[in-house]
Amino acid sequence: MAAQAVTPQSVDFSKWYNEIVYRADLAAQSPVRGCIIIKPYGYELWDAIKNGLDRRFKATGHRNAYFPLFIPESYIKREAQHVEGFSPELAVVTIAGGKELEEPLIVRPTSETIIGEAFAQWIQSYRDLPLLINQWSNVVRWELRTRPFLRTAEFLWQEGHTAHATHDDAEAETLQMLDVYADMAINDAAIPVIKGRKSEQEKFAGALRSYTIEAMMGDKKALQSGTSHNLGQNFATAFDIKYLDVNNEQQICWTTSWGLSTRFVGAVVMAHGDDTGLRLPPRLAPIQVVMVPIYRDEDGERVVMEAVSRLQAALLDAGIRLHVDTRDERPGFKFNDWEMRGVPVRIEIGPKDVANNTVVLARRDMPGKAGKQFVSQDGIVEAVKTLLGDIHDNMLEQATQFRDANIHEVEGDYNRFREIVADSWAYTWFCGDAECEKKIQEDNQAVSRCFPLEQDAGEGPCIVCKGTAKERALFAKAY
Amino acid sequence: MAAQAVTPQSVDFSKWYNEIVYRADLAAQSPVRGCIIIKPYGYELWDAIKNGLDRRFKATGHRNAYFPLFIPESYIKREAQHVEGFSPELAVVTIAGGKELEEPLIVRPTSETIIGEAFAQWIQSYRDLPLLINQWSNVVRWELRTRPFLRTAEFLWQEGHTAHATHDDAEAETLQMLDVYADMAINDAAIPVIKGRKSEQEKFAGALRSYTIEAMMGDKKALQSGTSHNLGQNFATAFDIKYLDVNNEQQICWTTSWGLSTRFVGAVVMAHGDDTGLRLPPRLAPIQVVMVPIYRDEDGERVVMEAVSRLQAALLDAGIRLHVDTRDERPGFKFNDWEMRGVPVRIEIGPKDVANNTVVLARRDMPGKAGKQFVSQDGIVEAVKTLLGDIHDNMLEQATQFRDANIHEVEGDYNRFREIVADSWAYTWFCGDAECEKKIQEDNQAVSRCFPLEQDAGEGPCIVCKGTAKERALFAKAY
Repeated sequence: MAAQAVTPQSVDFSKWYNEIVYRADLAAQSPVRGCIIIKPYGYELWDAIKNGLDRRFKATGHRNAYFPLFIPESYIKREAQHVEGFSPELAVVTIAGGKELEEPLIVRPTSETIIGEAFAQWIQSYRDLPLLINQWSNVVRWELRTRPFLRTAEFLWQEGHTAHATHDDAEAETLQMLDVYADMAINDAAIPVIKGRKSEQEKFAGALRSYTIEAMMGDKKALQSGTSHNLGQNFATAFDIKYLDVNNEQQICWTTSWGLSTRFVGAVVMAHGDDTGLRLPPRLAPIQVVMVPIYRDEDGERVVMEAVSRLQAALLDAGIRLHVDTRDERPGFKFNDWEMRGVPVRIEIGPKDVANNTVVLARRDMPGKAGKQFVSQDGIVEAVKTLLGDIHDNMLEQATQFRDANIHEVEGDYNRFREIVADSWAYTWFCGDAECEKKIQEDNQAVSRCFPLEQDAGEGPCIVCKGTAKERALFAKAY
Repeated sequence: MAAQAVTPQSVDFSKWYNEIVYRADLAAQSPVRGCIIIKPYGYELWDAIKNGLDRRFKATGHRNAYFPLFIPESYIKREAQHVEGFSPELAVVTIAGGKELEEPLIVRPTSETIIGEAFAQWIQSYRDLPLLINQWSNVVRWELRTRPFLRTAEFLWQEGHTAHATHDDAEAETLQMLDVYADMAINDAAIPVIKGRKSEQEKFAGALRSYTIEAMMGDKKALQSGTSHNLGQNFATAFDIKYLDVNNEQQICWTTSWGLSTRFVGAVVMAHGDDTGLRLPPRLAPIQVVMVPIYRDEDGERVVMEAVSRLQAALLDAGIRLHVDTRDERPGFKFNDWEMRGVPVRIEIGPKDVANNTVVLARRDMPGKAGKQFVSQDGIVEAVKTLLGDIHDNMLEQATQFRDANIHEVEGDYNRFREIVADSWAYTWFCGDAECEKKIQEDNQAVSRCFPLEQDAGEGPCIVCKGTAKERALFAKAY
């Protein structure tokens, strides 16, 4: 049963992505336009991302809550930029319980408005601040062009919503949550994201400032992987979120929101995958280790399976997410199958290994012989733990090298800039002006990704208008 | 700051319930008709229920997945009884992305149809069976009369969906999941539910057989707390879920579904709460232990807080969910506040306790002096662990005694039956006939809850028609 080869990345990255998503069993198509079914393997990957974030949210004092799916139409309209940004994408319930509704209900595209209304009720005094809330939920944005995980009409996400007494408190929260996202991306997903501020044109509808973590995919396109917004007093004014300060005077709150979605599953696929399939970072992999018993006869089976049981118990005890593949298929089929699913470590064990008290460890991130080693069964747990750590480090290093090799700095030379963004990321002085951004987009189909937070101070000529720019920005084609 | 007293249960249980839900901070009202906001304390309680179930689902071989929120209208209509059951409660999206949809989309009231369609794609051969899937999601049923947690237009739940080769496999799964629900209810929530089969009239729209766990609330009404359905071949036929058997012949699958929702939060409130507030079962309580430091001056504060830090570290290390209440409020206020929120154990510690190397442990399930004990600080972790176990056992025992004292057996005497169901549960022979059930409902506003699975074999006269009945059923007023 030879599987048909996947379209190589170099031939058609987009086609490769779609094939991998379905063949690695992350998702299935659904009969609803623009919506996918997240299959167990994909859901378990999302769950690992979710757990990593949830732990970090709680450690920074946030608590989960749940707000209604439906938002009265009048709420969405209350913040002017917000309604402008989201109107074209809304799904609207007009009939419920057999009757036409007096006021249509919007299926939430995001919850700033309904949560803003609640915060206005809950916050009375400075003692109630900061209010630090997170919601895990589904949201709906009726996009025209959809792709599994990257852009779907319905998706799963978390949305944090917080209220603060001052601008600086809100800004500190916004940046803290950006750090949380970057920490998860780098240390759980082995994706070396770059933290930065969005341009005025690219910021969230209704925000004062938006921050982003930007990741480079295998085709060198950028993927916005999580965003954190300082909403200033825009939503607080629209929804009357006020507090009495220590002097008993009424003040308007400062709010933030921040979100990361199942889009991040797509980031994991496209940042690490290769022509053989997924390569999952060990800390997120639903299955970290797959064990494949190999034998030809009943004697072999007896001997091998005895060792498998023993090793399985030891590895599970150590908290390693292990799967033993006892399907009635040839080893070669199994190897290919688990490589497609991106399992970081494969353990092969046959009668000869049992006789030698060894197993073969094969790592997904280093194909072929270079990635294979014999280890003693006695030290299996430690060997596997060390290897999982090494694989994480290596995947992060590979992705970082790839990223750095494909970011090119350019100053003043627009033609050179155009060459760069045709196939990689450009890092250049940028005045941030809407006209300049528009020109770049029209000329190159590339957009500003962010002003990276970590950059040397200075100034230089804007890549478009040559006016003085005080910051450098990254530009790239993007998902 | 004296809080207004809660309406006593004996005066108006329904009013008591609503007051407790809001005052214990489980939920807040929302601007959307019939929808609540689940506040952090309520969400954490739901999360504990969810984790308890999820662990059990995984231990029985189920995997989580996620299916679209929207269901094409034509799908809902494909199983005749199903559409009849759910039609009056549907919320319908007719506009999306600024355009009227060609086919309206139903916001899922439950997902048998869309999951059935997927199963038909995924299942080819007997090797694909059983297929054991669970989904955690929100669902919408536009009910006319709503109450927080018990009946809301949108609620959170899990819905299990499985496919099997034979009737008996499906039946075994249905009963296994009923056991899982009962195990969670009894061993996590300390609610002594009764497992039983629903009557033909009360079963799920489209099911062959429905099973339920029924719980007695503090007002002696019944609450259906979780249901498990053998769907027979009804949905498999409607959605073409077929498989090739070992003889390479095509067979129709047998499917099941089972669900438990945020309604269970209401069950916890009403099964255990008293006039002072919630009483949360220790294994589900978001905060298991609250520590209240008591002192009058700075010297006292220094001495007490030093001990508090030490004990806090020890209790958190042991995995106990502890909160230290350092608010600038009087101890009496704090005691009342945490009693309202139902925290199982309160630790009081003042300068004299520090001098004696003791603390006071006060248990929520035994108010007043009877529930207080001095324990040595040295053995605090063990003492608290033991106490949490004792509280669980005691709450389960209290609820069981209350339940058993309020179930009355009756044979043949319809007038006596009517007296019983006016204020408690009746256990009696019942033929299961629709006419008999209708009469009981019209005469008494009571309905059949279930035919309990555990009952002695035999036969007797149906309580209504006097015809021969082979099973006894429970009847009660219900939520």
